Amino acid sequence: MAAKIKIEKKILSENDKIAAAIRERLHQNNIVSLNFVSSPGSGKTSLLEKTIGYLGKDIKIGLIAGDVQTENDANRLKAAGGEIVRPVVTGGACHLDARMISKALENLDLEKIQMLFIENVGNLVCPSSYDLGEDMKVVLMSVTEGDDKPLKYPAMFRRSSVMIINKLDLLPHCDFNMETARQNALKINGKFKIFEMSCRTGDGLDEWYSWVKNPKI
Amino acid sequence: MAAKIKIEKKILSENDKIAAAIRERLHQNNIVSLNFVSSPGSGKTSLLEKTIGYLGKDIKIGLIAGDVQTENDANRLKAAGGEIVRPVVTGGACHLDARMISKALENLDLEKIQMLFIENVGNLVCPSSYDLGEDMKVVLMSVTEGDDKPLKYPAMFRRSSVMIINKLDLLPHCDFNMETARQNALKINGKFKIFEMSCRTGDGLDEWYSWVKNPKI
Repeated sequence: MAAKIKIEKKILSENDKIAAAIRERLHQNNIVSLNFVSSPGSGKTSLLEKTIGYLGKDIKIGLIAGDVQTENDANRLKAAGGEIVRPVVTGGACHLDARMISKALENLDLEKIQMLFIENVGNLVCPSSYDLGEDMKVVLMSVTEGDDKPLKYPAMFRRSSVMIINKLDLLPHCDFNMETARQNALKINGKFKIFEMSCRTGDGLDEWYSWVKNPKI
Repeated sequence: MAAKIKIEKKILSENDKIAAAIRERLHQNNIVSLNFVSSPGSGKTSLLEKTIGYLGKDIKIGLIAGDVQTENDANRLKAAGGEIVRPVVTGGACHLDARMISKALENLDLEKIQMLFIENVGNLVCPSSYDLGEDMKVVLMSVTEGDDKPLKYPAMFRRSSVMIINKLDLLPHCDFNMETARQNALKINGKFKIFEMSCRTGDGLDEWYSWVKNPKI
């Protein structure tokens, strides 16, 4: 397995170089960028639909929507008012990498946007290893997933700056302890900025909106 | 990237060889084996807790519980009555591979069990590529995840023989169309055996129990 590890390291370091170049380019253009990561079905697309619906009138947002197959998410984002949406179908790959983002940016006029939202592939493991040049990662989990997720998938939670606990409306129907989830998350990452919300009912979204307009940790 | 692809292929073919050896050994011992795969939080551990609670009196079941970190799942299975539970902590790897299973089997007396249940890492992408020597894969999704998951993660659904739609109790609170989910799944895999259930309320479990005692497709 040594050869595999060596090559993986090389690929990751190449990825880091491309990511650094992306970060520099985005900063030169004063673009704030967020990389949204989570399990499949935690609500990344729903959150982005709501967020672009709310912020889109004041802020020009570029969206890169990654998926293993289909452009379902990209189409949902367009339907929700996303004007600048670039789908990236990985064709089987379990994560977005910096090269894919770099390619997607070729078709995106950076002078026309102020924010870039990247929706990663639904996967709580692999995307944690790939810097995409973003300012920060936002990790979502939903109350249907179990309050021990931060402990079971620590790399993703450690490398994210913001945690969103979604599907609050389902809380009365689930065996999910909010306090335990928060404590587990803070054990992994003591600096977490945490939001609780339901993208379905809109509960908790106001606090998110007022933060994400000018995201700082 | 050519070198990476070459080495990945080599590793996968090594994996297949080990998986074939595992399969032969399990069959020589008349052991039926199922590999449970899903997103994090779809309910693999809950399903196994219920299943060993019900079948465990009549059938000796070996359990291999894979996780990126923690032995939480293995501990839950022990608490639910699992007598022969082997945790496998992958230490960051996003899937179980055949080598890990082979190692776990070293500590498991195959003459003493009739079934082997493997709980894979919560990941709807990568575990699809790794044969573990099992008789079939059982893929879970929950009604909170969205009815388009089979289309978005086709490899996993194509390579599984059984699909379980879990968390039926949450259906009235979710925008999930059961018929659409079934149709999407059957588009990917026309031979799917599909179960609907709620591990929380027990709804639908009887049908699953009577099938899993002697699983055939």
